[in-house]
Amino acid sequence: MRILITGAAGMVGRKLVARLLQDRQLAGRTIAAIDLHDIVAPETPQADGISVRAFTGDLAAAGASEALIADRPDMIFHLAGVVSGEAETNFDLGYRVNLDGSRTLFDAIRLANYKPRVVFTSSIAVFGAPFPEVIPDEFHPTPMTSYGTQKLMAEALLSDYTRRGFFDGVGIRLPTICVRPGKPNKAASGFFSSIIREPLHGQEAVLPVPRSVVHTHASPRSAVGFLIRAAGIDGALVGPRRNLTMPGVGVTVGEQIEALERVAGSAVTKLIREVPDAATWAIVQNWPTRFEARRARELGFTAEQSFDEIIRAHIEDELGG
Amino acid sequence: MRILITGAAGMVGRKLVARLLQDRQLAGRTIAAIDLHDIVAPETPQADGISVRAFTGDLAAAGASEALIADRPDMIFHLAGVVSGEAETNFDLGYRVNLDGSRTLFDAIRLANYKPRVVFTSSIAVFGAPFPEVIPDEFHPTPMTSYGTQKLMAEALLSDYTRRGFFDGVGIRLPTICVRPGKPNKAASGFFSSIIREPLHGQEAVLPVPRSVVHTHASPRSAVGFLIRAAGIDGALVGPRRNLTMPGVGVTVGEQIEALERVAGSAVTKLIREVPDAATWAIVQNWPTRFEARRARELGFTAEQSFDEIIRAHIEDELGG
Repeated sequence: MRILITGAAGMVGRKLVARLLQDRQLAGRTIAAIDLHDIVAPETPQADGISVRAFTGDLAAAGASEALIADRPDMIFHLAGVVSGEAETNFDLGYRVNLDGSRTLFDAIRLANYKPRVVFTSSIAVFGAPFPEVIPDEFHPTPMTSYGTQKLMAEALLSDYTRRGFFDGVGIRLPTICVRPGKPNKAASGFFSSIIREPLHGQEAVLPVPRSVVHTHASPRSAVGFLIRAAGIDGALVGPRRNLTMPGVGVTVGEQIEALERVAGSAVTKLIREVPDAATWAIVQNWPTRFEARRARELGFTAEQSFDEIIRAHIEDELGG
Repeated sequence: MRILITGAAGMVGRKLVARLLQDRQLAGRTIAAIDLHDIVAPETPQADGISVRAFTGDLAAAGASEALIADRPDMIFHLAGVVSGEAETNFDLGYRVNLDGSRTLFDAIRLANYKPRVVFTSSIAVFGAPFPEVIPDEFHPTPMTSYGTQKLMAEALLSDYTRRGFFDGVGIRLPTICVRPGKPNKAASGFFSSIIREPLHGQEAVLPVPRSVVHTHASPRSAVGFLIRAAGIDGALVGPRRNLTMPGVGVTVGEQIEALERVAGSAVTKLIREVPDAATWAIVQNWPTRFEARRARELGFTAEQSFDEIIRAHIEDELGG
């Protein structure tokens, strides 16, 4: 099996590559090759018997997608995207990468006339306030960011291209992935991770929103698990509604901090400083809160059961336990 | 006030023009000029004191939208589109006209940097089976045609461009417009009109689906009423969810035929021949049935109360009473 991963230099992309090289198989088939693509050069980890190639460039540029599809990858993970904060400040870039990049890739697959599985990472940002207390699978997406709009449009394409038989797509709406390792990115959701990550490193972290904010999270480990499940699932089980809201842990920011205190103690949580930020709040207040995610759970997508578990996963995976 | 209408040569476009020339005002302002655009040359009816100009061409072609926006129309009715049947058989044309055409127009308005009202005709084709018995306003759109996909994507753009302040958009999801006058178009929904229209002219009509099919209809007169209401509504009342499902009359095909018999007699309904067609059925079986349309009703959008009324509107408007 040949695998293509766009956005491979991103956090989730790198973890997915590591997992695939460790598993050496996907969806019951042996992995022969992995092609990685990103706007910056992705690392190319070595693995005996698996060819790993890197491609660098703008996915929406003429010919870029065609080059990636030339070797007809059996499995395509389309993770590439400009994050929410950046898509909001840079209108043109967001539409170019998140909408045109996806469409160009999907069209290259369509025109290559074979029928690979395409796994697309959408986002809960497709939803916009007001919400019921728990958002059901059949709730309408009314995004309140350009990022969410672009993800919704790519979801619609994914469904239509699947219905027409151009490829076999599965869209997974990721909750906020937390705890993100490494440096903050430009996502407006960055603070959800930094209030856990920085204090665990003995550093101060800023909380820009009220503790009452409710949000749904899953660990990077769960995000990779979602991708692996989406790659292996029988398309007939998914049916015509190809975009699935993933499960996660719905908690208030206050509950996140309580979990951190349980796991790491109050000396750690004391490093969180509350500094309200109007710009972040303006975005976050329209974000969805809790999800039912019934279809995804029934289809075998699993996440953590508590925020304590999410913190422990971070400590195990990033801080050597 | 200067008005621009795309898709002005279509059935709804022509009726809208006639209504505007008769009213001579819109949203409380006197109409000074109406610019008409279509892929075929629109008629340019004369009216004292109102300038009516026609533009012909491909809306998605380079420079076409910019030319239409050059005189900064205060009110833009974006009706242009390839119909459902054609968008399904001609993949490239559908995406080019319905998606790229809308995006090009919206971008021309964005770059002109003024903030007109934009009224966009979407469609209940954004919804896909299975459905609850009555579809609520918050039900998720999962289109099962390329046409519905393209309309959904344009809706998403309309919302985002409105949120960003590029224009003040209102999207109206039209139910099937029935009874369409004149010749059938390529819409898969054409038979809903022809089984009424042709028998009223003493001609045979073919019914390609079972009489049990439930569908929602509004007259061309109501469609124009929706457009006028959307043009005049206070955007603050609409709020951030800019795409509204319009009201209509939800009936079975059997009930349509019973209404026709009440209005015109059994000699007329005997002209309907049932000839099942698998291709039409494949599309129609995934179409939505009945809508709540609560928000639209509360916002003052009104349609007929019965299918008898819809038939009478056709007889009054098209057959001279």
